[in-house]
Amino acid sequence: MKKIINDPETVVQDALRGMQAAHSDLLTVHYDPAVIVRADGPAQGKVAIISGGGSGHEPLHGGFVGRGMLDAACPGPVFTSPTSDQVLDAVVRTDGGAGALLIVKNYTGDVLNFEMAGELAESEVRSVVIDDDVAVKDSLYTAGRRGVGGTVLLEKIVGAAAERGDDLAACEALSLRVIASVRSMGLALTSCTVPHVGSPSFELADDEMEIGIGIHGEPGRHRVPAGTASEMVSALLEPILEDLPFSSGDRVLLFTNSMGGTPLIELYLAHGIAEQLLADRGIIVERRLVGPYITSLEMQGMSLTLLRLDDEMISLWDAPVHTPALRWGV
Amino acid sequence: MKKIINDPETVVQDALRGMQAAHSDLLTVHYDPAVIVRADGPAQGKVAIISGGGSGHEPLHGGFVGRGMLDAACPGPVFTSPTSDQVLDAVVRTDGGAGALLIVKNYTGDVLNFEMAGELAESEVRSVVIDDDVAVKDSLYTAGRRGVGGTVLLEKIVGAAAERGDDLAACEALSLRVIASVRSMGLALTSCTVPHVGSPSFELADDEMEIGIGIHGEPGRHRVPAGTASEMVSALLEPILEDLPFSSGDRVLLFTNSMGGTPLIELYLAHGIAEQLLADRGIIVERRLVGPYITSLEMQGMSLTLLRLDDEMISLWDAPVHTPALRWGV
Repeated sequence: MKKIINDPETVVQDALRGMQAAHSDLLTVHYDPAVIVRADGPAQGKVAIISGGGSGHEPLHGGFVGRGMLDAACPGPVFTSPTSDQVLDAVVRTDGGAGALLIVKNYTGDVLNFEMAGELAESEVRSVVIDDDVAVKDSLYTAGRRGVGGTVLLEKIVGAAAERGDDLAACEALSLRVIASVRSMGLALTSCTVPHVGSPSFELADDEMEIGIGIHGEPGRHRVPAGTASEMVSALLEPILEDLPFSSGDRVLLFTNSMGGTPLIELYLAHGIAEQLLADRGIIVERRLVGPYITSLEMQGMSLTLLRLDDEMISLWDAPVHTPALRWGV
Repeated sequence: MKKIINDPETVVQDALRGMQAAHSDLLTVHYDPAVIVRADGPAQGKVAIISGGGSGHEPLHGGFVGRGMLDAACPGPVFTSPTSDQVLDAVVRTDGGAGALLIVKNYTGDVLNFEMAGELAESEVRSVVIDDDVAVKDSLYTAGRRGVGGTVLLEKIVGAAAERGDDLAACEALSLRVIASVRSMGLALTSCTVPHVGSPSFELADDEMEIGIGIHGEPGRHRVPAGTASEMVSALLEPILEDLPFSSGDRVLLFTNSMGGTPLIELYLAHGIAEQLLADRGIIVERRLVGPYITSLEMQGMSLTLLRLDDEMISLWDAPVHTPALRWGV
């Protein structure tokens, strides 16, 4: 294992120190328990939007803390859920008197710990579970579908709604609408190594790829010979389109995501193919996001996410955001 | 070789199609010869800022085309200089009547082809050569030092100067001031594979790293056992500090760059260590940039760049920028 770390046991904490140093204008990091909150503090009367999960998916979630997106993020150990103490601490620190919405990716540990924090909190807390991965029904870490790329889009859109003053019920209803409208699927060309494990999470042959991989390297639908970019994009996009289903005339946001180790030149290449396939089917790409936003450490591979947009979602997507990883209008 | 591509011979062109689809609000891509220009066209009376080089370093340079940074980028084949025809085409397409400044990384092919384009152009063209890599004096592709991470900072700062209306002589003088004030060094933990070559550019043992690597995988200073993050950061930062030299009380921009395949969690961890080392020496980090901005395909590794700032550079760094890869104030 070759990694830019000092000690596998302190890697998350050490990385948080670097985030704090890099973004002290945006973030304040608390270390015990580990919670990243907006440096400009809880806004009175604003619903707090809180998320979190295992580390190793950066910039998700800490990189999305800031104006117009998350109020707090709870980073667990690498690929391991944060504790309910962390989530509860985030709820208390961001309390502006209007309640908190917890955005939970559908992994068993996350769901349990966020739920427990919600029950322990004295303020009003609701939570939504995102499960946008069409690849598998149940998997290593999940009952039901996994939460993946759609999480980034949900955090941006509901973050903008909270910022403009929507109340807790409205934020929850909007989140459920986004969750009902978003689908994702990913593939891996290489594995990744969790620092405290020290060996690759799985093995792939030199000519193989895994279709339908999860963001922790958990198995997907099947292993097949690594083909062309066009074959890869089709293998992800067809199941997504069939699932919702998406139809001609739909307006969508297309999110082409790197699993961490894929060069940008390959990611743009794949994005171009996806745009063409959607155009061929009469689906209108109104907005797009291309880059490494929800990753699996150094894994090479990609995921595609498609969100069916309505006018309100477009306006909330376009609203100003100022976080380490997403910024516009500011 | 497992890559998300269709054909090694058309990878750059195919990726440009994806960039065009993703960023049609910002960019217009011309394919023959390949030139990426600002979608809002040449501004009358504005100096055109033009750069380019081999592909495979994305988002450099195409990802920096847009308001407040580059007017055009010329992407060569992967790790291969663009032709003088490409550069000349960029000069003609961006001509606003105030001349063009060419930003050239110090590689023999780039220097020759940009120089030839400048001679063939009918409008006024000046060029500056950036050579910020302190690792080696001469190397596989270069006489003198190589141009690396400092290029990103130079393009942002002189791009802002051109945007506010500085003339060609002022842009050239500012560029020379930035080049005199910036130093970089990088290391690699893994190699990378050029698509049309099909095998790794070099081999590193499972416990080795290469210190002073270039952005094409060309050899650096020495190979050593891969150590801790603290050792890696020191191995890059000490030669940078000694070279200029940087001293206590200096105000700097610290740029912690991923070579492409390094997870963000490791990059932030390294950034935090670098901030601490600089604080210990009394060097004041006024601005920072952390992320994959000048890469070597999927190479795992990092580079550090330090720019000694003055008030004007800070103000130009902070000025609005709107490109695919860097955006703020807009």
